[in-house]
Amino acid sequence: MILRFFDSKSFQKWDRFYRSNFFNSIGGYKSMNLIGTKSKEGIANLGVFFSVVHVGSTTPLMGVVFRAPDVPRHTLQNIYDTGYFTINSVQEWVLEKAHSASIKYDADISEFYKIGLRESYHGNFIAPYVESSRIKMGLKFVEKHDVAANGTVFLVGEVQECWVDGDALEPDGFVEHSNVNNVLVNGLDTYYSAKRIKKLPVLESKLPSK
Amino acid sequence: MILRFFDSKSFQKWDRFYRSNFFNSIGGYKSMNLIGTKSKEGIANLGVFFSVVHVGSTTPLMGVVFRAPDVPRHTLQNIYDTGYFTINSVQEWVLEKAHSASIKYDADISEFYKIGLRESYHGNFIAPYVESSRIKMGLKFVEKHDVAANGTVFLVGEVQECWVDGDALEPDGFVEHSNVNNVLVNGLDTYYSAKRIKKLPVLESKLPSK
Repeated sequence: MILRFFDSKSFQKWDRFYRSNFFNSIGGYKSMNLIGTKSKEGIANLGVFFSVVHVGSTTPLMGVVFRAPDVPRHTLQNIYDTGYFTINSVQEWVLEKAHSASIKYDADISEFYKIGLRESYHGNFIAPYVESSRIKMGLKFVEKHDVAANGTVFLVGEVQECWVDGDALEPDGFVEHSNVNNVLVNGLDTYYSAKRIKKLPVLESKLPSK
Repeated sequence: MILRFFDSKSFQKWDRFYRSNFFNSIGGYKSMNLIGTKSKEGIANLGVFFSVVHVGSTTPLMGVVFRAPDVPRHTLQNIYDTGYFTINSVQEWVLEKAHSASIKYDADISEFYKIGLRESYHGNFIAPYVESSRIKMGLKFVEKHDVAANGTVFLVGEVQECWVDGDALEPDGFVEHSNVNNVLVNGLDTYYSAKRIKKLPVLESKLPSK
């Protein structure tokens, strides 16, 4: 099929739903994750996020993109207030429940309770984990960057602890998400499963520096 | 299978390859993209990137994470020098060629030439596109944020123009990457294809604001 061309003139003609669908999906697939936090009043919160990126390995760092806090963003506020959050993978068999975590509830209602996923805690780590999740991380807030162009927030956290299903962990440290049926997503609403095609030799420039 | 637990003590005991594999893969799937730039000397450059995230739709913005510029980063330097770059999707049939774009060539050799992908240009847009790519964007540099923790760079660009295969564009603006066999990736070297499971109703809180 032929390629269709669009430029700023096209973008401006589109209605906001079309434009949102287009630009939320043109960058391609992402993993679906649930972020767990606790408010300073002690209410557990769960939000759906599609933008967890790798920032560092020597000190293990992850980045997450948050929409501009022009309306209340419970997850972001809770991270600022308490300093901690969890990132939990989503398996295919809880997809519908996980998807509904993006419903906007009042801050005094826990999404865990509303959507029917059980929370779990570990030691003194304040943020709640999703009990059923097969790959999860506990992180500490490190820094945030406000995007001047539209108020989006790029937040960086340091991984403090992890749980990984033994079936997903390969001998070289690689975490194979397809072994535990983790879901990926594109746009705001379309979910996929992944099938491994191949592993290619890692090239020198990609290797970690000392 | 049971979950295995790891904390900072574990992370420090791992060798750097294990740690890199682990933290590059634990966050899950990403789309594989090629970023095209031109140096101020006029040499076309192509790099492999796994971290393109959506930043905005009203003004269409994309974010990309770059490793710390402690060794020469041609793509990043070219964006700073010229102000423009392209993001090109990778189809399964060019995966091996695209993967080899992460080989470190000297700045005076174009990766396009080395790996055997053809570059193409549009109008006055300075940055090269990958001719065979079925979904591609031309962007203008907007801003960058240096992550204090490890020197990683979060760069934001505004989408100026797009090409999308008609087979991938749905009536509501959604871009279906699986219709053109786009590749996704996890870690540094493991590639996947995606199969659509389902589309769920978009929930109110995810809808674009006016």
